[in-house]
Amino acid sequence: MTKMRPEYLALKEFSLSIKTYSSILSLLHWDQETYMPPGGITARGQQLSLLAGHIHELKTSRKYRNLLGKLVHLSSGKPKKKGLSRLQRVELREWFKDYDRDYRLPASFVKHFSQTTSEASQIWQSAKKTNNFKLFAPFLDKILQLNREKAGILGFEDHPYDALIENYEPSMTSAKIKEIFGRLRKELVHLLDKIRGSKQVDNRFLLGTFDRKKQMELGSALFSQLPFEADYSRMDLSAHPFSMALHPHDSRITTRILSDSLMSNIFSVMHESGHSMYEMNLPTEHWGTPLAEAVSLGIHESQSRFWETLIGHSLPFWQCYYPLVQKTFPSHFKHVSIDRFYRAINRVSPSYIRVEADEVTYCLHVILRFEIEMALVSGQLQVADLPYAWNDKMKELLGVTPPTDREGCLQDVHWAFGDFGYFPTYALGNLFAAQFFNAFARQHPDWETRVSAGELGFIKDFLKINIHSLGKQYSSEELVKRTTGKPLSESAYCSYLNNKYTEVYNL
Amino acid sequence: MTKMRPEYLALKEFSLSIKTYSSILSLLHWDQETYMPPGGITARGQQLSLLAGHIHELKTSRKYRNLLGKLVHLSSGKPKKKGLSRLQRVELREWFKDYDRDYRLPASFVKHFSQTTSEASQIWQSAKKTNNFKLFAPFLDKILQLNREKAGILGFEDHPYDALIENYEPSMTSAKIKEIFGRLRKELVHLLDKIRGSKQVDNRFLLGTFDRKKQMELGSALFSQLPFEADYSRMDLSAHPFSMALHPHDSRITTRILSDSLMSNIFSVMHESGHSMYEMNLPTEHWGTPLAEAVSLGIHESQSRFWETLIGHSLPFWQCYYPLVQKTFPSHFKHVSIDRFYRAINRVSPSYIRVEADEVTYCLHVILRFEIEMALVSGQLQVADLPYAWNDKMKELLGVTPPTDREGCLQDVHWAFGDFGYFPTYALGNLFAAQFFNAFARQHPDWETRVSAGELGFIKDFLKINIHSLGKQYSSEELVKRTTGKPLSESAYCSYLNNKYTEVYNL
Repeated sequence: MTKMRPEYLALKEFSLSIKTYSSILSLLHWDQETYMPPGGITARGQQLSLLAGHIHELKTSRKYRNLLGKLVHLSSGKPKKKGLSRLQRVELREWFKDYDRDYRLPASFVKHFSQTTSEASQIWQSAKKTNNFKLFAPFLDKILQLNREKAGILGFEDHPYDALIENYEPSMTSAKIKEIFGRLRKELVHLLDKIRGSKQVDNRFLLGTFDRKKQMELGSALFSQLPFEADYSRMDLSAHPFSMALHPHDSRITTRILSDSLMSNIFSVMHESGHSMYEMNLPTEHWGTPLAEAVSLGIHESQSRFWETLIGHSLPFWQCYYPLVQKTFPSHFKHVSIDRFYRAINRVSPSYIRVEADEVTYCLHVILRFEIEMALVSGQLQVADLPYAWNDKMKELLGVTPPTDREGCLQDVHWAFGDFGYFPTYALGNLFAAQFFNAFARQHPDWETRVSAGELGFIKDFLKINIHSLGKQYSSEELVKRTTGKPLSESAYCSYLNNKYTEVYNL
Repeated sequence: MTKMRPEYLALKEFSLSIKTYSSILSLLHWDQETYMPPGGITARGQQLSLLAGHIHELKTSRKYRNLLGKLVHLSSGKPKKKGLSRLQRVELREWFKDYDRDYRLPASFVKHFSQTTSEASQIWQSAKKTNNFKLFAPFLDKILQLNREKAGILGFEDHPYDALIENYEPSMTSAKIKEIFGRLRKELVHLLDKIRGSKQVDNRFLLGTFDRKKQMELGSALFSQLPFEADYSRMDLSAHPFSMALHPHDSRITTRILSDSLMSNIFSVMHESGHSMYEMNLPTEHWGTPLAEAVSLGIHESQSRFWETLIGHSLPFWQCYYPLVQKTFPSHFKHVSIDRFYRAINRVSPSYIRVEADEVTYCLHVILRFEIEMALVSGQLQVADLPYAWNDKMKELLGVTPPTDREGCLQDVHWAFGDFGYFPTYALGNLFAAQFFNAFARQHPDWETRVSAGELGFIKDFLKINIHSLGKQYSSEELVKRTTGKPLSESAYCSYLNNKYTEVYNL
């Protein structure tokens, strides 16, 4: 990029400043969830809104437009110069795509959207607390209308939902997801039926009370075993676990301790560490450009689920770490064999709440939301009918009916935040993860022996080389093909589940 | 301000946005000293520099100038409208003063100053570590030159040092300080001589090793007893104790635990809480304007010293809390009477290090720095001769000679940061505090009984009403007259010390 060096450098610097402001915004969020004194919440709201507004201004500024316009045609996004390297073309493509999306949404629309969802989030909290769907319904209606409007502004070919997905999982369309989810749904319902027909595994020893301090020690011990630079990470407590990276060298997670659930903390640590490792292994030399950004929410989720489920729910992992659990809680586990422990943590049991779901039912919760979102966005389903549609689908997919809307259609915050098209990425993450895992296992046929001996670094190396270090070079579709040789499908995930649960449940 | 309402509101909003960005900057600093993973330091530097630059841009922006210019004459700072209330005149006076100062310093100068001091701070660290003054000397020379240049740009009547003090203690001049410090110096040297001639108090029981965890518990217990809203505060650990307010409702402190010094933690908690309470009691309804800002560094320091020394080193305070100390460290204090404990924590002993100094010698350390700063700024003293001048003055004022420059003229970071004119505020804080304390004791002649019974809220009420809630309404000079009926002088402080130490040392 020798000829366009000054323009390129100016653009890169501007992009880095947006990224830097965004990382400051992340710290404000992190602090709010971890250490902020409760009384600081109003001032925090002002800080967040001021900084978020400034970032939006920069992203849609004339200066940014001019900088970009020197390197790409603003009508098409095509580079103005020839002879660019592949990486340079990637940067320009992604910069333009983001800019174009932000630019097309009028400031007045963005403000209205943000005000509506901010109010809706507060109302949703009350509605959930008091189990009063009718309180939330008019806000959901407004948010749906705004999302339809957004889809109209951004444009789409087949379905308005496509324009919404685009923000979270750019290579996906509703048609592609529908096809994959259709097959996945069938397989999962079938597997769940078989499990329902067999003897339930015993998990009573997981249901006791577990000392919070010891749980924290255990969580920290596991955290310290995970293959990343201790100097770049930290773990704290918050009401809901999350991961937050300010930079590859400052990538934090939180967990939570529930005294009646030992595994909640452990799996949160594994899940959030998976997210955190992705951010930590982005190439710092490209920091501030799309080459040091995650591909998509689905790929991000694949990294958290890789560590949480494919490793963290596996027998080899616990062959190494179960003794630590036994040592920490001897009275609970002294007489529990690793085989019983392994089966217990993999117990399948349909429940009302997505975030508590096991590996087999988790994607069914997501498919339910996808089907309902499609119907809501297209207008086939009216908001007033949502609770009935939700409960019908729960019965159809999971065989259970939530006793209240609070445990039903009011359980997730996403819609109140205005996020339509987000949910599918949770299931796609599992599919990506299973497919990546097959490639990993092919490359490391001895992975079980190595993991059971406490070796984890080679897993990180595989993920770093094939995913993390590549930033946004490839779309999720390209990345999965490149790494696994096959396009995205449900088959790896279904095989994994079928094999595993045939064994766990002696099907 | 009905007629100028829209202009006034626009200015207030702009001022609030500057304040809000500054509070975000504070969070970046707080996090860096408390929880940031060590690897995050480079990214943090970028975040700080970007945000500080943005704040400087806002403060010197044409927009701010235009907003101010609608309300005051930009040549003189005089309000353009008549019939303003006193508070409105205060706001405009302070807004203009700050703006004018920022505006007069050219951006190139500010950048050069910031780069020089940033480099100098790193060099100072190495110089201190390796006890190599010559390494730091050329940087100190540059910083002195820049400070002289700064004084020239900002303007002064008598001495360039006046322009530098102005930033920290606006109602002070070098002449006024010289006069007060001259008398204070004499009194302190005389008192120290008398103490030196008498029997030293026994403090051996304070010299043991104190369990860090128990120290933390004790510190937290004391912190929780101090009279402020728990929801607006928090306490964490850092290498050097500090207080940091993001807003009156989010005002944090840190302490540090040294296993060989029990009182270091306790007095840090008291000192930083004094600062924190000031910020917490600023009037939130004026947040974003000078009416919700501290008067000066000296007044700020008076609040920390009030709690640390006048309360925290007093017999009534320990009559209430010494039993807690005994309970926490029974093996250390079981056989130590409160009288012995009280004398021990008030032991006077000249040392090399300012931050470890007792009440009698502390101001002598500050006077030394003031006299040296004056001589350096005026050119009477050359940087190369600083170590000799330092040691001579140490001998003259405190009767001791530091064995190394690391324990001498390299001990403080202030000069490396570019801060000339800052040190005097540490001593002024003690003088203000003693004078405020006299007024407080006149109003509450029963303070000793109440404090020994654990009552502390009425102290806070006095400080809140007379100081905290007034923001920048009065200059430090006006404030001290208004609260105590007398102009600032050393006499209250000297009487306090003479009375107290006559008793402690049976002089």
